Amino acid sequence: MKVIKGGITSPKGFKASGVHAGIKKQKKDMAIIISDSLCAAAGCFTTNRVKAAPVLYDMEKIKNPIKGVVVNSGNANACTGEQGMRDAEETADTMAGLIGCGGENILVASTGVIGVNLPMDIIKEGIKTCHSIAGSDFESGEAAAEAIMTTDTVKKTICVQLDINGRTVTIGGAAKGCGMINPNMATMLCFITTDGAISDKAFKKALDAAVTDSFNMISVDGDMSTNDSVIALANGMAENEEITEGTKAYDDFAEALFYICRELAIKCAADGEGATKLIEAHVYNAATKKDARLMARSIVSSNLFKAAIFGSDANWGRALCAMGYSGADFDPLGVSLSFASENGSIAVMEKGRPIVFDEELAKKILSADKITVETDISDGSEEARAWGCDLTYDYVKINGDYRS
Amino acid sequence: MKVIKGGITSPKGFKASGVHAGIKKQKKDMAIIISDSLCAAAGCFTTNRVKAAPVLYDMEKIKNPIKGVVVNSGNANACTGEQGMRDAEETADTMAGLIGCGGENILVASTGVIGVNLPMDIIKEGIKTCHSIAGSDFESGEAAAEAIMTTDTVKKTICVQLDINGRTVTIGGAAKGCGMINPNMATMLCFITTDGAISDKAFKKALDAAVTDSFNMISVDGDMSTNDSVIALANGMAENEEITEGTKAYDDFAEALFYICRELAIKCAADGEGATKLIEAHVYNAATKKDARLMARSIVSSNLFKAAIFGSDANWGRALCAMGYSGADFDPLGVSLSFASENGSIAVMEKGRPIVFDEELAKKILSADKITVETDISDGSEEARAWGCDLTYDYVKINGDYRS
Repeated sequence: MKVIKGGITSPKGFKASGVHAGIKKQKKDMAIIISDSLCAAAGCFTTNRVKAAPVLYDMEKIKNPIKGVVVNSGNANACTGEQGMRDAEETADTMAGLIGCGGENILVASTGVIGVNLPMDIIKEGIKTCHSIAGSDFESGEAAAEAIMTTDTVKKTICVQLDINGRTVTIGGAAKGCGMINPNMATMLCFITTDGAISDKAFKKALDAAVTDSFNMISVDGDMSTNDSVIALANGMAENEEITEGTKAYDDFAEALFYICRELAIKCAADGEGATKLIEAHVYNAATKKDARLMARSIVSSNLFKAAIFGSDANWGRALCAMGYSGADFDPLGVSLSFASENGSIAVMEKGRPIVFDEELAKKILSADKITVETDISDGSEEARAWGCDLTYDYVKINGDYRS
Repeated sequence: MKVIKGGITSPKGFKASGVHAGIKKQKKDMAIIISDSLCAAAGCFTTNRVKAAPVLYDMEKIKNPIKGVVVNSGNANACTGEQGMRDAEETADTMAGLIGCGGENILVASTGVIGVNLPMDIIKEGIKTCHSIAGSDFESGEAAAEAIMTTDTVKKTICVQLDINGRTVTIGGAAKGCGMINPNMATMLCFITTDGAISDKAFKKALDAAVTDSFNMISVDGDMSTNDSVIALANGMAENEEITEGTKAYDDFAEALFYICRELAIKCAADGEGATKLIEAHVYNAATKKDARLMARSIVSSNLFKAAIFGSDANWGRALCAMGYSGADFDPLGVSLSFASENGSIAVMEKGRPIVFDEELAKKILSADKITVETDISDGSEEARAWGCDLTYDYVKINGDYRS
């Protein structure tokens, strides 16, 4: 597997575009992704009981072959009642009319303000504009990645290529964060395209596994959104033999898909609202995988710990405290903890007891852009990683008056 | 029942004091509470898997008759290993030696930095000073309430009197917040004294019930501490007939105890770190009490909603979103939501659909010091209230460098 410059338009047969349709004041706010042929589709959606209309729509349609996706930012089409469902349907139908398929072959996604109905005139006009300029070049994919952004400060795209039984298969991805992100996803949208041929069942299995240890292991603010969706499309145009479970081809493809998801998830965490630092919690030697995940997620979700990292304060007690209320089963007296970054590493606690450490060195280590909390549970051999960001003044500023 | 000026020294036979012993640089940091006679004791403690030494100590001793409590701020004696347990024991023994009882008749509590051993010389000296000046006057109770503060900006005390079978029973309380507070308590300490006579069993039952809908329904930052404790002492010096379950006296006493706990809990939420506003979430017409509690707590715990309230932004979608991931069972299309404060009230959503509302009026309502979110689930008759505060720049500032 190799990482190449590219994104969602890099796999054969995919076009995309992103435009400013007019939902937002100035920035790009609509994107489409089109495949030349019908795709196998797999999806993971928010587990929030309050699901936005596009999520409810997609959960129903994802079992169909899919030919295109319409995405808008600036309006989440969430808590919009029956009108919201009709708008999602009309959005899909409009796109379907332009590319010659049924509305049931189109997926939709929205992100932005909750509780306001979609401006359908703008949406329909935007789809036409998107369709008229959609291209398979790199820039078209980048434009789409830009159009799905809300409070994101950078586009999040990635692309890998791998060999599947002698054929080159390409997988591209684009994602947006950045607030309302929590384990089990949040207003996080991710679109993955591939020209690989893969069975529906194998595709869903590989995506579920990839999401479990990537998007479901990031937290920005503990809020799980009504809209988050990971949608993956495979059009088979690489003409490889169809990938099925239990093969080396499957393992290779699943590994590449996980890489795509993990890299995009980390980009989302690093670009969390107001974030100045990426925090990685690495919990190892845990009794079970579930315990390891619970503890890692709890550390990166703790407001107190996140604020301490913002201040480059080696307040490891807050990490241990967060592990304590995570629901994981462990013995606090077995835990050893250290901080690491490009500036070095330092042990701060051993087997539940504080270590006298060099505060100056700790400050230097915690001043880096990426901080890792290494947590040894000494109770088994399972591990997990979770990613989050520091809690800053700007998080409060961004969210204190988001709608205006 | 009537509310009177007073606190933990108001019930007959209780003395208290608070001093600066030297754990903190300047502020008061040690307090004691002493009863003239042995007390029935009841307690509720953190459910965090990582429990501080004083919590582990008290959970063991609370079944004994109790004569005194030693509290320190500035150091949590948490994550301090076996030395921490020995220090808790030595603290209790020192106090016991001074007031003539066994160490097993003393409770201890600590709050402050995690992972640093108690400075026992200072603690022992502090106990002696506290003992030498302990008094039953109002000011002595206030001094104790001040000495348990960490980042609290105000003392939190309260006192009520009620008639139990012709005898006047007094209940006083003192609490501290203010960060690391979450449903199921957190670095929250509360001490309640009463001269009422009540059976151990009835006392524990009344305290559990009072804490469930008070301290367990507040959230400042989602972090549950290693130290939080509610300790209640009853010395019987009001000479009422012992209160037992299933009597009117029990109901009256339980109601007064709940009042004490609720008022102190609300004071803790209002004084949350960096808070400028108290948020009350009132969920009603829910199918079950459990669902109502889950939804109310989830609303006041949402960073996004808390930041919106800080900005006086009527972003009700964030409240509904938080209800959605609370784990409660409800139909989003049944929910109606409004905001209320001393400046009026405004409906913003009805039966899952947005209402066009006056943004100016909403802003005015949300600019008050206390905001109530009224949430009608239209699915039953159960209700719950939870309290929290807004998320502000100062929360980040306070927690970015707490240790220095």
